[in-house]
Parts: sequence; structure tokens; C-alpha cells
Amino acid sequence: MDERSRPGWFTTLVSRRAVLATGTAALATPVALTLGAAAPSDSASARTGTVRKITMYAEALPGNLYGYGLEPGKATIPGPILEIYEGDTLEITLVNNTDRRMSIHPHGVDYSVDSDGSPLNASFNNPGETRTYIWRSREMFLASGRRWMPGSAGYWHYHDHAMGTDHGTLGIARGLYGALVVRRRGDILPDEQFTVVFNEMSINNQVAPNTPIFEANLGQRVEWIAIGHGNQFHTFHLHAHRWADNRTGMLEGPTDPSQVIDNKDLNPGGSFGFQVLAGEGVGPGAWMYHCHVQTHSETGMSGIFLVRAADGSMPPGAQEAIDRFRGHAHGTAATATPEPVPTQVPADAQGQHQHPPSG
Amino acid sequence: MDERSRPGWFTTLVSRRAVLATGTAALATPVALTLGAAAPSDSASARTGTVRKITMYAEALPGNLYGYGLEPGKATIPGPILEIYEGDTLEITLVNNTDRRMSIHPHGVDYSVDSDGSPLNASFNNPGETRTYIWRSREMFLASGRRWMPGSAGYWHYHDHAMGTDHGTLGIARGLYGALVVRRRGDILPDEQFTVVFNEMSINNQVAPNTPIFEANLGQRVEWIAIGHGNQFHTFHLHAHRWADNRTGMLEGPTDPSQVIDNKDLNPGGSFGFQVLAGEGVGPGAWMYHCHVQTHSETGMSGIFLVRAADGSMPPGAQEAIDRFRGHAHGTAATATPEPVPTQVPADAQGQHQHPPSG
Amino acid sequence: MDERSRPGWFTTLVSRRAVLATGTAALATPVALTLGAAAPSDSASARTGTVRKITMYAEALPGNLYGYGLEPGKATIPGPILEIYEGDTLEITLVNNTDRRMSIHPHGVDYSVDSDGSPLNASFNNPGETRTYIWRSREMFLASGRRWMPGSAGYWHYHDHAMGTDHGTLGIARGLYGALVVRRRGDILPDEQFTVVFNEMSINNQVAPNTPIFEANLGQRVEWIAIGHGNQFHTFHLHAHRWADNRTGMLEGPTDPSQVIDNKDLNPGGSFGFQVLAGEGVGPGAWMYHCHVQTHSETGMSGIFLVRAADGSMPPGAQEAIDRFRGHAHGTAATATPEPVPTQVPADAQGQHQHPPSG
Repeated sequence: MDERSRPGWFTTLVSRRAVLATGTAALATPVALTLGAAAPSDSASARTGTVRKITMYAEALPGNLYGYGLEPGKATIPGPILEIYEGDTLEITLVNNTDRRMSIHPHGVDYSVDSDGSPLNASFNNPGETRTYIWRSREMFLASGRRWMPGSAGYWHYHDHAMGTDHGTLGIARGLYGALVVRRRGDILPDEQFTVVFNEMSINNQVAPNTPIFEANLGQRVEWIAIGHGNQFHTFHLHAHRWADNRTGMLEGPTDPSQVIDNKDLNPGGSFGFQVLAGEGVGPGAWMYHCHVQTHSETGMSGIFLVRAADGSMPPGAQEAIDRFRGHAHGTAATATPEPVPTQVPADAQGQHQHPPSG
Repeated sequence: MDERSRPGWFTTLVSRRAVLATGTAALATPVALTLGAAAPSDSASARTGTVRKITMYAEALPGNLYGYGLEPGKATIPGPILEIYEGDTLEITLVNNTDRRMSIHPHGVDYSVDSDGSPLNASFNNPGETRTYIWRSREMFLASGRRWMPGSAGYWHYHDHAMGTDHGTLGIARGLYGALVVRRRGDILPDEQFTVVFNEMSINNQVAPNTPIFEANLGQRVEWIAIGHGNQFHTFHLHAHRWADNRTGMLEGPTDPSQVIDNKDLNPGGSFGFQVLAGEGVGPGAWMYHCHVQTHSETGMSGIFLVRAADGSMPPGAQEAIDRFRGHAHGTAATATPEPVPTQVPADAQGQHQHPPSG
Repeated sequence: MDERSRPGWFTTLVSRRAVLATGTAALATPVALTLGAAAPSDSASARTGTVRKITMYAEALPGNLYGYGLEPGKATIPGPILEIYEGDTLEITLVNNTDRRMSIHPHGVDYSVDSDGSPLNASFNNPGETRTYIWRSREMFLASGRRWMPGSAGYWHYHDHAMGTDHGTLGIARGLYGALVVRRRGDILPDEQFTVVFNEMSINNQVAPNTPIFEANLGQRVEWIAIGHGNQFHTFHLHAHRWADNRTGMLEGPTDPSQVIDNKDLNPGGSFGFQVLAGEGVGPGAWMYHCHVQTHSETGMSGIFLVRAADGSMPPGAQEAIDRFRGHAHGTAATATPEPVPTQVPADAQGQHQHPPSG
């Protein structure tokens, strides 16, 4: 049975908790485990995860772009958020509906050379070709010396590694990328998830004022997944919210030494994620997120995190802020504005989530 | 009563411990708490901090620069170090004595959209205008899943977000920035504090040999606060001293996993801080601090950390080193030297500290 | 007695465990200590380490390059891996066999101004001159406030600080750099060690397809030491392997908050290291390592981590991958290829290891 046919597997801008509520006990049970209760296994293979099979479609999009999608005709930029638990396996049947060589290459998970997604290992789809890639994951396991080899949990990403060059430079530039989340059993699930990709001088191949307006209600638990691509170096800044510079963005306790930050380097091939409570301690409003490199923010790498009131209503001043943003001049006359990257993208590009199905 | 009139509130190059010694018990008491004794509260509002009210003045400086100051005519680059404990609130009445639109925008603390400091939220001072910005802070608090939402403690910074562009690009370029330190109860207080801002191709809008010579006596506890601004990417390196890459620069204990470093990326909008014991294990002398990007250090992003003998006397060789530094040619003929940023700055620019007053 | 004459001090591409097996009990004993058993001392001087004396030679190499070596005529790029335990002292007699001023400057360890390696402190070798540099190290020690001042353990590096400019820009550009590893008692020792230096647009002053092919057998514990130099900013990515972003690359346990990564910023003056089990969970094969900045990987900052079968045999497909790599066109016609840096280097450049001798 194709996992994609299960309820909850395709979800668009729905609350994560709603997904769980309508999901099966098989998923709900591990989620209820806290980290303390969920002792890591003492070998990489002790806990057998679920094998999830999905089909992904690579397609051309208007504006000379490309995208990944979970159904034909539904490709988006960024592609769908893929999400598993440590121990799970993702079997991805990739249908290449473009007229170019392309592939899918993941960060953070395990794969054999056949699933590397690189031309180096002859692991790619020719035009029109369908190919299956297998990504495995694991829990941490104890090595000699009382230290643990890390498990797969993390805010990772996937991207093309074959279009245009042996490094997928053309595919990445034109939109073939997305978020991959591997959770530990017991990790807190968010209400909303946003993928923010700093790709060259764009955010998700858009420049302001067409960059995403991410929305949440006051107090919702929001997960940000930030990914860097291209040739430029950036710093991601979010107004009025902060996170711990570690695996989850939260602290393990009073002796967790992690620095707390609100601005982080976001450079090619890198990714990180964190959860915040929307507007917590600061209230609702139109909050900026942007690259903090001055010329980058001014030439379009800026967007809005709209925190609505708890009841979903528009807070005072927010619409005026959005109107200002949409009329934003992006820099002064003295600032050279680079040619924007192509930005047309399907209307639901931000909303195509993929939650882990029940096992 | 204006907090600024209290003893210790304005201090210039005085020992921090001296401030404490002459301060009131109200400050000394929380300082004496160790982290172990100061258990975080179980809600964000459990500990009510102090409300500190200050007035800041934005002013033009010679050399086409601008600065923030705590008194009229006393603006500096960088601005004063603002320092609070988690739970405290800073109420800043900002007097704009410039002829341009400008604001103050903090990193790391809590503020409503009114205090955002961004034109997006119509939060700025027109020329000649006075406006109050409120920054709140909090302790960590327990969220679901046995994890803690981070508190405000950190080595943060503040800067203009409105001059020249909607991102404050002109104000930042010309000196409108400074350090903001939020401490946890029980954090160790330093004897000396240095603010180092890598702003474009300058350090604190200065290039060598006019970059700051930071001074301490052997064994003094010195706090470095490093901030990045502008469009360039940098790496901060300090000779003969190292720190843990975490919140404090020190280790929590033998199982603290933090990497120990002496070179760290310092990029636009980012900041970090750490404490070292001056010359500890290496002795006094003229120690270099510099950007480790080769052309950056050669074209002026280099300075001296002068560790004097414990009695304050000049150690052997240090004056010769300083003389060499002042005659420094900065690169070879083969190195293109960029036009330096304007560098004139008041003589006491490095010394304007602002310690937390007694509550 | 010169430490260099002891067995195990010079080793070329031999297994680290083999070194230990043929080494002396004096080394084997501390290695067997786990971190839990090896409580840090409560003062910096409590444990007196070993003083290791070595002679290093700086020499010209073909292709207008320079290198450090442990014997005359044996200079390599990068230089030998220098490795000590916290508490040890390295006394390096540096023989400058070049016709230029040069020095050796370490990161992470303790040295007086005499051993700074900087012209600022008149600490360098004139052409033909021999000079001794002393590097000390220490364990962490408890400071006030229940926090620990960090010890010296880390993946550090050394480099010239005097050739061409006062910052050693010419010496670094031409190959005068190497890895310095300071271990804590109880740290796990690797089977293989690789030094990867992203220096301008090269890896170890080589561009693909001449970049190193690092080799290990399936399951071997491999230590990567990554160092950044020059003026460019980079991100280091390794396929199919991941590590914790902390001191060791491993986790202390389930509550270690470190992010797990497979892509990390690697910028001038910075360094990090980690250990992986070669091919663990993914199998043998030709795995790419590369800078993830697209134009950097395409113009030559890419190499191969060849994981052989456990018996050392070539895995299926690996030779084909290497052949593809060697025929690699490096980018498309549309990509401007910068002039490569000089790349000739002695054949054994990757194999010159220096393990800590017995005490």
C-alpha cells in the first residue's frame, strides 16, 4: 500500500496537532514519550523503524524554474517537507518529468552509493526516467570511550545534485530543494512549519515583496527550517524571537551551555531549525525576518512573520505594516539592485507539508 | 528618579569589581548567587525584574559619523554597553539629535511592535523627535516535552534600523550600534569589558593603527563582546587566549561538549561574547586581535590587546610592539587597499561602560 | 633524547591502533582512561605533562610553494599533524631553510610573546635562521562561579605568520600550514587522520582532480581535521557521514544538545575536527567531500573519501567513480574558472602523521 494514500500524509497548512488527533495510535504513542523515558538504544539496529514509500515528481514550473512535488502537477518551491523519526526509512520513487538530467540528494541520513544522487556515483535520473532512492536513519549508539555516535535527528534538507553540472548547480538555482526533518522519539511536534531557503539573493527563489508571509496565531508552536544554497553567504535574523543554537532550538535545562541567538549564519549546503512560540512575550504583529547582510535585505531578502491574535484575527497595525512592505522600495537610489531571480511559484508553495504518517 | 543618576551607572574604564564594591547590596546579592543556587523559575513571569529607565542621545560626530550616548554631547562609537539581568526591563527614551530619521533596534530581548525600531512597524524617531522604546527580558521557562524555552541571557547588541534605508544601513555604517548584555542570575561579572564591532572593513569604524588598544592587567577577568555589521564576512581571532563556543565562553564541567576556539565567524547581525583571564598561562604582552581573513587584517582590521603586568606596569617588549603596530604598513604593494571608512571618534569611545545599577 | 627517534613518532599512513599496539605502555595507559574516570584537575598546573621536543624544517617546494616537515627534504602541504595531550608542552626548533622571513604560529595553545610567531612581537625566523618556539597546553580548571576555564583540547592548527606580510599571507597562500590536535586524557584515538585545508580556492593547495583521495576501510575510525585559510568563505560537506557540532563530533549522551551536521562553515583561521566510522550504515564506496558553495565545488574544491571494503578491497563501482572524477570537467562553459593556485606537492603529502610519542 502506498503510504501517500493514508490520512495525514498530504496536509496543507493544517495544524500538526490536528493531524495527530486524527492520526493513529501508532504515531501518537512515540510522540507522547519524553526524551527521558525514551532511552536511546544501545545499537544502531535495535529499534526497527517504519519504511515509508513515497513518489516524488520533478517538474518544470513557470519562470524557467523547477520543483519537486508529491503529485503530478503539484511541484512547489521549496519542495514538500519530508519528515521521519530516527530509525525510519524513506523509499523515494523519483519521477523525472523534466527534460534534463536530475536527482535527489539528502543531507543527514544514510544511503548507499546507489542513492547518493551524484553523477560521481552514476546516481541520477535521465530525462523522463524514474529511479528509486532509499534513505535510512538511525538512533544514536554507544561507541567506545563512553561517547555516542550521533543519530540522524536534525533539520536537514534535500536537493538536486545532477542538473546542469555534477553538483546540481542549475537544479538548485532553479528551485530543486526542500526540507527534511528527522526527529528523535519524544521530540515536540510543532503546530506550524516554515521552510526558508536563502538561495543566492532570494528567499525560496522569491524577492521582496513577493517573499513568503508566514502566518501563525499567538502562542502557536512554530518550527522554522532554514536552508542555505548557492554561492552567497547570508545571516538569518528573526525579529522578536530567539532560539538556542543547538539541535532543537530549546534548552535541555539550566546547565545546557548553548548560546541563545536570533541571528545565524546560513550558508550554502547548511541548514538548521528551531521552534518558537509565536509572539510569546512580545505580542502579535508583523515581524520581520531577513538576511542581516545590509545589501541583501535591501535588495529583497526580507519577509514577514505575521503573528495573528490568538483567535486568528489581524492585530492592530499589521495590515499597515504589510502594505508598507508591499510598497517597499528595497534600498535607496544609491544601492544597485541586482536582477531578481525568477520568482513565479505556485500559490500553495508554502503550504505543502508532509507529516510522518502512522506506522 | 532617573536611574542614570545613581552611582555606578556611568562608569568609564573603571574596574567592574570596584563598581560592585562601591555599589549597593541590592546588586551585590544576586551577583553572589551561583547558577546552581539560582534555579530558573517555572514560568516566564515568576521573577519580576527591575525596570531601568535611561535616556539615550543620537548625535552627529566628526567625520560624517553618528553615535549613541547616555548624555548629550557624549555619543561614542560603539555606543555604551547596556547591561541587565534576565527579568529586567529597559525603558529607553531615545532623543534624536540628528537631522535624519533613525531608531534603536535590539537583538535578543522582548519588545512589542511599537518598540521594534523598524520603519515596517512605523517605529522610529523623525529628526529631532524623542521616542521611548521598551525592551523586556525573561528567564528560561519549562515548555512541554521536558525542554526549556530559552531566556534572554546573551551577548546581544542594538543598532539603528531606520537611517538611510528601512534596514538602517546608513546608520549602522556610520556608527549607530552598541553592545547589549543580558546576564543570568549568578553569572560571573568581569573586571573589564571590550566591545569589538567588525563593521564593513573596520573595527568600531576605525582601521589600524587607529583601532582600539584594549588594556587589562595580568589575571583580570576580561569580557569581550564581538558584533558583526555591514556587508562583509569576517572571522575574529584573538592571540594566546581561547574560549568555549557557548553562551559564556566557559565550560559547565567535564561533560560540557562545547568546542573550544580562538577564531570565530563574525558576520552581519551576529554577536557573541566570552570571558578570559588576561594573559593567563601566557603572560603579559601586546597580543594581537584581528580578522583572520588575510586581506582584511592587512588592510586595517587588526588591533592590540595589551596585557600589562599584574601591577599595571608595561611588560618588556610591549611598547616596542605597539610602536611597530603604529608604524604598520598594512599590506604589501601588491594588496589593493580599499578606501577606509571614516574613523574619527571621540577619545573615550572605548571607555563608556554602562553597568546595571542597583535595583 | 630527541623524541623524534622513538618508535611511533614518525608514521606514514599506518593505522593508529597499530601505532598503539607497537607503542609503549606509557601511552596506552592514559588512552584507556575514560573521560569519566579522568577527572579534570582543579588547577591548571596539577597534572604535569610531557615535554616533547621536535625540529621542524620550512622549505621551498616545487611550484613556488613552501611546506613544513619533520626532516630536511620532507616538507609537505599540509605540514605534519602535531598531536599532544592536554598538559603537554611542544618545544619546536624551527629551521628556516627558505630565503624569506617566516615563522610558526599556533592556535589554541599557550605561548609567551616570544613564541607568538608574529612580527608584531619580533617572533619569527629570518632566512636561514633557526628559532625555538614553545607551545604549552593545559587541562580545564575551575574558576569562580562554578564554571570551568576551558583547557587546550581541540582540533587546532598552525601556520606561518610572517612571510610576505605581518600576517603571513604569502606563507599561508603557498602552503605553510598544518593541523595541531590537543587531546583530553581519555579521548578516543582514531585509526586514520585526514587534514583538509580550504585555502583560497584550493584544498591543500590542490584543485580537482588532484585533490586528495582519502582512504579507509569500512568501519575504521577516521578523524577529519578541517582548517580554513585565505580570503574566501567556504562550507565543508561530506557525503553519507555526519557528526555532532561540538568538540569531538560525538555526543556525550542523550541530553547532549549539540546539533548533528554534515556541512559546516570553514572560514579563514577557523578549524574543527570530528571522527566518523568509515562507511558505517552506508557501506563502502567513493564518497564525495567538497565545498558546498556551488562555484567552489565546480572549480575544483571537491575530492573523494574512498571507503574500501573491510578487507581493504575496492568496492564495486568505486574505481569507475574515481575514473569519472579524474575526467571531471569542473563546471560548465558558463562558469568562469579562476586561475588555479600552484598545486604540485610531494607524493606523500597526506601521509606524514605525527602521533604523540610515549611520555
